[in-house]
Amino acid sequence: MTGTTPPFDSAAEWQAINSLRVLAMDAVQQANSGHPGTPMALAPAAWMLWTRHLKHAPETPDWADRDRFVLSCGHASMLLYGLLHLTGYDLSIDDIKAFRQWGSKTPGHPERGHTVGVETTTGPLGQGISNAVGMAISERMLRAEFGEAVVNHRTWVIASDGDLMEGISHESASLAGHLGLGRLTVIWDDNSITIDGRTDLAFSEGVAQRFEAYGWRTLRVDDGTDLVAIDAALSRAGMEEDKPTLIVLKTIIGDPAPTKRDTAGAHGAPLGAEEIAATKKILGWPDEPFFVPKEAYRTLPDLQTQGAGLVRDWESRLAASPKASEFTARMAGTLPDGWESALPDLSAESIATRQASQKALGQLAHAIPALAGGSADLTGSNGTKITAGGVFSASMSGTRFHFGVREHGMAAILNGMAAHGGVRPYGATFLVFADYCKPSLRLAALMGLPATFIFSHDSIGVGEDGPTHQPVEHLAMLRGIPGMVTLRPGDAAETVESWRTLLRRTDGPTTLILTRQSLAAQERRADPVGDTARGAYILHEPEAAPRAVVIATGSELQIAVDAAKALAAEGIPTRVVSMPSWELFLAQDASWRDRVLPPALSARVSVEAGSTFGWCRFVGDRGRAIGIDHFGASAPGKRLFEEFGFTAARVAQAVRDIV
Amino acid sequence: MTGTTPPFDSAAEWQAINSLRVLAMDAVQQANSGHPGTPMALAPAAWMLWTRHLKHAPETPDWADRDRFVLSCGHASMLLYGLLHLTGYDLSIDDIKAFRQWGSKTPGHPERGHTVGVETTTGPLGQGISNAVGMAISERMLRAEFGEAVVNHRTWVIASDGDLMEGISHESASLAGHLGLGRLTVIWDDNSITIDGRTDLAFSEGVAQRFEAYGWRTLRVDDGTDLVAIDAALSRAGMEEDKPTLIVLKTIIGDPAPTKRDTAGAHGAPLGAEEIAATKKILGWPDEPFFVPKEAYRTLPDLQTQGAGLVRDWESRLAASPKASEFTARMAGTLPDGWESALPDLSAESIATRQASQKALGQLAHAIPALAGGSADLTGSNGTKITAGGVFSASMSGTRFHFGVREHGMAAILNGMAAHGGVRPYGATFLVFADYCKPSLRLAALMGLPATFIFSHDSIGVGEDGPTHQPVEHLAMLRGIPGMVTLRPGDAAETVESWRTLLRRTDGPTTLILTRQSLAAQERRADPVGDTARGAYILHEPEAAPRAVVIATGSELQIAVDAAKALAAEGIPTRVVSMPSWELFLAQDASWRDRVLPPALSARVSVEAGSTFGWCRFVGDRGRAIGIDHFGASAPGKRLFEEFGFTAARVAQAVRDIV
Repeated sequence: MTGTTPPFDSAAEWQAINSLRVLAMDAVQQANSGHPGTPMALAPAAWMLWTRHLKHAPETPDWADRDRFVLSCGHASMLLYGLLHLTGYDLSIDDIKAFRQWGSKTPGHPERGHTVGVETTTGPLGQGISNAVGMAISERMLRAEFGEAVVNHRTWVIASDGDLMEGISHESASLAGHLGLGRLTVIWDDNSITIDGRTDLAFSEGVAQRFEAYGWRTLRVDDGTDLVAIDAALSRAGMEEDKPTLIVLKTIIGDPAPTKRDTAGAHGAPLGAEEIAATKKILGWPDEPFFVPKEAYRTLPDLQTQGAGLVRDWESRLAASPKASEFTARMAGTLPDGWESALPDLSAESIATRQASQKALGQLAHAIPALAGGSADLTGSNGTKITAGGVFSASMSGTRFHFGVREHGMAAILNGMAAHGGVRPYGATFLVFADYCKPSLRLAALMGLPATFIFSHDSIGVGEDGPTHQPVEHLAMLRGIPGMVTLRPGDAAETVESWRTLLRRTDGPTTLILTRQSLAAQERRADPVGDTARGAYILHEPEAAPRAVVIATGSELQIAVDAAKALAAEGIPTRVVSMPSWELFLAQDASWRDRVLPPALSARVSVEAGSTFGWCRFVGDRGRAIGIDHFGASAPGKRLFEEFGFTAARVAQAVRDIV
Repeated sequence: MTGTTPPFDSAAEWQAINSLRVLAMDAVQQANSGHPGTPMALAPAAWMLWTRHLKHAPETPDWADRDRFVLSCGHASMLLYGLLHLTGYDLSIDDIKAFRQWGSKTPGHPERGHTVGVETTTGPLGQGISNAVGMAISERMLRAEFGEAVVNHRTWVIASDGDLMEGISHESASLAGHLGLGRLTVIWDDNSITIDGRTDLAFSEGVAQRFEAYGWRTLRVDDGTDLVAIDAALSRAGMEEDKPTLIVLKTIIGDPAPTKRDTAGAHGAPLGAEEIAATKKILGWPDEPFFVPKEAYRTLPDLQTQGAGLVRDWESRLAASPKASEFTARMAGTLPDGWESALPDLSAESIATRQASQKALGQLAHAIPALAGGSADLTGSNGTKITAGGVFSASMSGTRFHFGVREHGMAAILNGMAAHGGVRPYGATFLVFADYCKPSLRLAALMGLPATFIFSHDSIGVGEDGPTHQPVEHLAMLRGIPGMVTLRPGDAAETVESWRTLLRRTDGPTTLILTRQSLAAQERRADPVGDTARGAYILHEPEAAPRAVVIATGSELQIAVDAAKALAAEGIPTRVVSMPSWELFLAQDASWRDRVLPPALSARVSVEAGSTFGWCRFVGDRGRAIGIDHFGASAPGKRLFEEFGFTAARVAQAVRDIV
């Protein structure tokens, strides 16, 4: 947006740019912790982006049609906080002074939902740039659905060397190039410095060449302080429609600190009082910490006014659109009225839960336009082979994706799609490959994003592919993530209920754990609706008062029920509890939990084809946990279940032993 | 090795090549499961590699100076099994007929230690190619130490599209190029097919261009059935010393199956009786399953003889080397006599355990030449800043590495370094980034490799960097991995003992969990040596018989001890158990375990600045687990410990509540 308000005035721009640098130095110094060098080096480019190219409205930070900005190198958080402050967002100098302190709005790495204007939580490298790919995907998807009058924005990223070394960035950048995401621009801070020293200790690749191989356009700015060159590159990037753009921005970390500039020492520690004083002298700055001259705020009113104008004009266009209320509901995360009627009745179907999931998803995708996603090259296997909507490609929008063999990139892209708003994304791979996604799963939970992660082939039931493909500890891993809900349905009906539950959930992510192999449809009492949502419920109650309870999940429901029937015949009436989700159960009030698992009913056996890790919580000292705590083996799944003891006989014996 | 035995005879070669194809089809058909297409497509190139270029001795599969071959696309396992069989390894046709069955030597994906000739367990994509980088590193390191007469071999990889889509391959390939690993050759099976269909569904990058950007040399073979072109490319690659080589090998998956060739249908399912019959007709093959003509075995005796000759010559050279016994000990994994005397006495030092680790490592690295490794760009932070040995670079060998911001690649490279033999590798990053490494950590455990993973900054003690950097569920994640030993020492002395313990451990990997912040040196009874190795021990015993026990790990030892002292003064004598490792403790016999945690002493409180997940195992129904089950926050570490309840007062109160 060169040429529009605010008008360019070099001296005034540099007052603002240097304010960003000083705030970064001073905040880190006061906190005695943090990363000053990168904010200082990037201040010129970031300033030009935020004041001349980024389409945003500082007083309406949630404006749906704003450009999205992602600071992938989240350790440079002071850059973002300084920008938010100087461009008129609700972030004060006092907030900045409280950088990295308990309860402040300025945590060490930017956190979505915690500070205004932060689109996604970054810090772990490679994540932000991958989220941004998801945001660009959402923008195109929504633009195709609602029209350019209503959806017309871009996604801008600042990324570091470290971000580009991370494998996840390869996955997401390759996919971005493949999908021709022309509205994505990544500014790579090429400063040749990492924590250990100069990048050439470990990194000598031709980055631009690599990105060109991915199908990106690459631009170069040789001097990260040349505002005109920066502006020109941003303008070019801002006109691109066909390919994502990488701007190689040469900077000097810690510029203009006299002795620490261009050294690793400027990266991740306070510069120190002496170096700060010397830098301020060079800048012609007064000594006073956190001093910001009036001129630095020169553009603020213009940006606010301009932003307000953009929002007003957009609101008119939205009001004029026939899809206005649909769009508003989409961006609010509200699903269409009556969507639950699309859930199929599979209560009589003895099929693999991945197939049940596919049936449910197939119908839900017709009812819920926001539902978009795909698999990391395992579409048929994961049960995501559906027909609603089209395939998203370089030339077409759609709601179905081929993510390629890129599990981690896929997961982070889902996070970005959800963070953007207007989309309810899902992704899929094998449960054993949840390992590849773990960092992104964690961030989804930290951010409370409504992303769905489908993990099929969930146990030794995988069979012949062998131990590298057979999950053991993965359910435990997922259950350990704060804020993650993990659902392992035990038949087709529970799978449908799982979809109902996870789609109703808007404040956090869910993993859906599915079998490769067929599971018998369980008989239930008349009204099972809602029980899956409660995490655990009584699946089978003996005629006489239970003396023991077997807790089972997923594929182990059947042997639990078989064991209970055998035990009842022996005079040991046994309840069977199905526990599709630990987290949902533990969130119930005590009356439900005690009804399902009465404290007095202490003869408890759990059975799940996964690690016993953590099951002591439910079975207690008197109980037994049946599981598998070693790696699997390559053989048909049925053989493995027998060899590793997942039989009704073993369950029954465990009950006898403790009763 | 073109021109040496065995002499090239096109008709005979094709008998062998087609035998490989037929065995793959038939084995998968019989198992009713598996991946026939890729073995069929790669058979010509693999045959030329194994008979003309790979330096190996089929009757001495553990010969130290053999070339290493890695099938990174492990699903093509039948290719490897067929090669092993036809070239004279101890793998019979009956073994092949038992493909994917319980107890066979031919599991679905190749498993190191399970089948002769398998260098590393593959299956999860991207791992094998990364392991191979580690193997090439080990070769160069050992060659520099012991001389070319004793160490002089290459590493060859076959990799798929999927391997190259995986982010981890970007990390390891970039590092390989940076380190100029000229003895590494990767044959990329460019077949344009993945599970979901043609690769251009998701993948359209210029792979060769990308690898050239990494500093690799790229060669191209346009027809994967052109034996002469294949041989020429392998010869060129085999002469390269300066850059790793990527051979782009165009193949047709499932070639020459008439209807399924070049389709995703040939990838991961049996071809079916009809298609197999039709293929055999094209090949001029009899119907009989697993038929292998005599001519296919033509080269076998030559390869065995040649191999035996290579081994004999090498043994002579080894015997003539002044370092012969040292080399033999290195390859056997035996550490130098007296290495334990290098362990420092830090029992009086109140320092962060990452600093204690650095002191120990610094001295151990002088005493143990096999000890090699580094950090993923956090050298100073992780405590791996040592001076012994040199830095391994493109021009120099050494034992110190800058892995760059490539945690996952680093971990898989460590696995390869260890798998090669002769090296005891270690790597380091922040504990929260163990998430990035998880797939490789799992494989290290599956393979029982003696790799060491250092994870520092292990809790909310991280402080101001905030929740994205503060581990919560990570100890639980690591403890869930079968075969992994996790050590979280509570002071400098325990850290030294941890190093002793993990270096003595040769049959599996260890994670070493270290603090950012200083920990007080704990007072102990006279002979603590060995107690860390037992996983848990009595750190503090009250004068009167204990009525309660507090179990603590790592940074929480101090508040446990403080609480115990306060409780004793109130008439609640309390034992403190330090539990640096769950796995080591659980492996002790019952007498030790009952001595440390007597079953009758059921008033138990655990305290650890991590998830409470799984602690019920040690504290039982009557006990309490103090931990953190939510994400952290950005503030100084001290503040976080207080705010989140890691205080002696809270520990003491928990004991009072249950006693």
